[in-house]
Amino acid sequence: MHAEILTIGDELCRGEIVDTNSSYLASRLWDLDITTRWMTSCNDRESDIADALRLAVARSDVVLCSGGLGPTEDDLTVDVVSGLCGVAPSIDEAARIHLEQRFAGRIEVSPLQLRQVRVPTGARIYSNPVGLAPGFEVTVRDIPVICMPGVPRELHGIFDKHVERRLTELREARGDVERIARRIYRVFGRGESQISAACRGIVDDVAGATIHYQLKFPETLVKLVVRDRDQAAANARLQGMDSILRARLDPYLYGTGDENLVDRVMRRLLEAQLRVATAESCTGGMIGELLTRMPGSSKAFVGGAIAYSYDEKTRQLGVRKETLDAYGAVSEPCVREMAAGAAERFGVDYAVAVSGVAGPDGGTPEKPVGTVWLALAGPEALGIVTKKLSWPGSRDQVRTLAAWWALRMIDAAISMQLPDHEERQRAQRILVGEVKR
Amino acid sequence: MHAEILTIGDELCRGEIVDTNSSYLASRLWDLDITTRWMTSCNDRESDIADALRLAVARSDVVLCSGGLGPTEDDLTVDVVSGLCGVAPSIDEAARIHLEQRFAGRIEVSPLQLRQVRVPTGARIYSNPVGLAPGFEVTVRDIPVICMPGVPRELHGIFDKHVERRLTELREARGDVERIARRIYRVFGRGESQISAACRGIVDDVAGATIHYQLKFPETLVKLVVRDRDQAAANARLQGMDSILRARLDPYLYGTGDENLVDRVMRRLLEAQLRVATAESCTGGMIGELLTRMPGSSKAFVGGAIAYSYDEKTRQLGVRKETLDAYGAVSEPCVREMAAGAAERFGVDYAVAVSGVAGPDGGTPEKPVGTVWLALAGPEALGIVTKKLSWPGSRDQVRTLAAWWALRMIDAAISMQLPDHEERQRAQRILVGEVKR
Repeated sequence: MHAEILTIGDELCRGEIVDTNSSYLASRLWDLDITTRWMTSCNDRESDIADALRLAVARSDVVLCSGGLGPTEDDLTVDVVSGLCGVAPSIDEAARIHLEQRFAGRIEVSPLQLRQVRVPTGARIYSNPVGLAPGFEVTVRDIPVICMPGVPRELHGIFDKHVERRLTELREARGDVERIARRIYRVFGRGESQISAACRGIVDDVAGATIHYQLKFPETLVKLVVRDRDQAAANARLQGMDSILRARLDPYLYGTGDENLVDRVMRRLLEAQLRVATAESCTGGMIGELLTRMPGSSKAFVGGAIAYSYDEKTRQLGVRKETLDAYGAVSEPCVREMAAGAAERFGVDYAVAVSGVAGPDGGTPEKPVGTVWLALAGPEALGIVTKKLSWPGSRDQVRTLAAWWALRMIDAAISMQLPDHEERQRAQRILVGEVKR
Repeated sequence: MHAEILTIGDELCRGEIVDTNSSYLASRLWDLDITTRWMTSCNDRESDIADALRLAVARSDVVLCSGGLGPTEDDLTVDVVSGLCGVAPSIDEAARIHLEQRFAGRIEVSPLQLRQVRVPTGARIYSNPVGLAPGFEVTVRDIPVICMPGVPRELHGIFDKHVERRLTELREARGDVERIARRIYRVFGRGESQISAACRGIVDDVAGATIHYQLKFPETLVKLVVRDRDQAAANARLQGMDSILRARLDPYLYGTGDENLVDRVMRRLLEAQLRVATAESCTGGMIGELLTRMPGSSKAFVGGAIAYSYDEKTRQLGVRKETLDAYGAVSEPCVREMAAGAAERFGVDYAVAVSGVAGPDGGTPEKPVGTVWLALAGPEALGIVTKKLSWPGSRDQVRTLAAWWALRMIDAAISMQLPDHEERQRAQRILVGEVKR
């Protein structure tokens, strides 16, 4: 089964935004055993959208389309698709009600606003769980065409809620019944090429098995896939490779599945009823921002000190002036005192501290750009552990990597309290030692 | 002059990497007054690459192609393009010498390595300033096809060194000398549909003029474009619309060009030698993170308090317990005390405070999800100004909107110190009043 992905928007064709929807959809299709053969982007021009759709239904088995469903007059997807189907656009009543409830008493619903709840008459509707414009599916020359909004989170929401299941149904209706067993391994702390080198050969003698890598900076996803007409056989072969892969990725494998490190750490803090605080310099608040992404995080996250200047490290966290004078702010003694000061002042179980040279300026021969010191202060048994990063990336990358390492240290510290001896050992390896990448 | 961009690679069609080459090329073409009409991605499959190229030369005036020029056996671009031109691939001697010098004494140059220095015989060669595989240009059915490697920095290097000049030459040879005048207006504080409604009709009677909207949450870019064979005429018509558009977007227009609000605020703080601190609750560190994105921000950003809990609002910022008991944390009195406390304790010119209900839980009838209070404490003349947001979005959107409003308040406060009376009045309108969206 071959798919075509069509993304629509002048902003794409002017290079104003990078098209992440195509790769998102291609990756989801790949997971569903559907091969994306063509990905096309075109402008918000009626005749181009129509040409692109005509071509897509002529050379593909299913078409996924994103963009052009918004409220403005250059959002034309509904009009073009309706034209190709020989129907008129009409208001989707459920979406209209949702829109009016959303705006109730706040702003007036204008005719322009209503544009975004139109669909081709008779289309199969895919309600939008996070936004206003619904997705929909029509059939053009016997080929299913599924349209979704261009806003990535709305596209993701509609895909998760409706389209994934629908595509499976379409694939199986074609008698295309190969089953897939797959697992996503989430790896943080090593680069993509080191990870792919570590995994070499794992799938070589396993029938129907493939391995794929996806860099989602700062983590890498390793995807193990086994295909077989028999689901149980696929599952068994996948399971057979699991422990080998885990050993190869140790200790940088932190989890499997869809939960990333940010969500994992907050979930585990909440489960264990632990309280945490942050002391940030070069990350400037990024760790706090990550820790508060999840609803309910206030039960675990108490607060943080962003101590960008020397004086603030002293005032907010009690770092001694002598320490700063002797070792500088980017030093093990400084982050130790930052973490200890935060743990005490915020009265928390864990406090994490970060200070580094994010660059691009400010590097020295002893402390080049990318040098970051981290410290985690925890309960008595743990004490204060520190870690030095040394990875020369862009300012944004250095800061993101540092913030994720701070989370990874909290994650490992939680594991240190578990009864499982092996898990404690893996956590120990994460908490100790210098990291070069 | 219409361009087509073709990017080739299985990794694109499996969604393993995001295609940044297409947007890079589209944006460079846009700057050269060449409209990208189609962007296509396909797999490393000989017949698909050939089909894509045949289609591209049939519907475009120039084709830019990236990928498939590497040394491995699935790099097939040279073979396919040679086939379409009816020539054989041959080694580019200059590139071969470069490759051998590069590998001298380190690794042996294998036949596989030599694959990447092949070109279609007779092609125009574009040497690669940063890598091994040269770019090249051939003519297929009278249409120029320019091929470059898929590695972004090699593509950029070849584009800068050769392709930019070549495209200008091609465009002018066509007598296609339409010039573009354009300006980007950056708007924050109103939704895309309200902004497009406000701009309605502006370009209607202006020859060659178009207006485009791009939502880059939480801001919207309004792009005004005028095309004419005479650059001065295009510029003049653009300038003629400028003041009308500015009036329509007032006071939510904060700037023009490529600089976004985050960079603008930090630049202005640095220029005015002002110092700032943050007091964050629901944004959890996001404002601090934004303020520290720019290198050199430590001269203006002193630090911040992330005060997620009641106790921390009191301990770190001196918010009175009675205030919290009487009004709650999401209230004007609370953010007033947060901002005043931060300004005093951090010893800064400006302190900004945020407290809100980010959701999805925690809303009440009086304080529904999306209710956010902001306060800015500034020099004596300004005092403390507060603002209430009330916009029901997702947790992430509410937080991002709140963080940007905090920056916008700082931005407006800086404008309040300027001599320009009109600019002060606009700033005043931003600083005062409730914001509904």
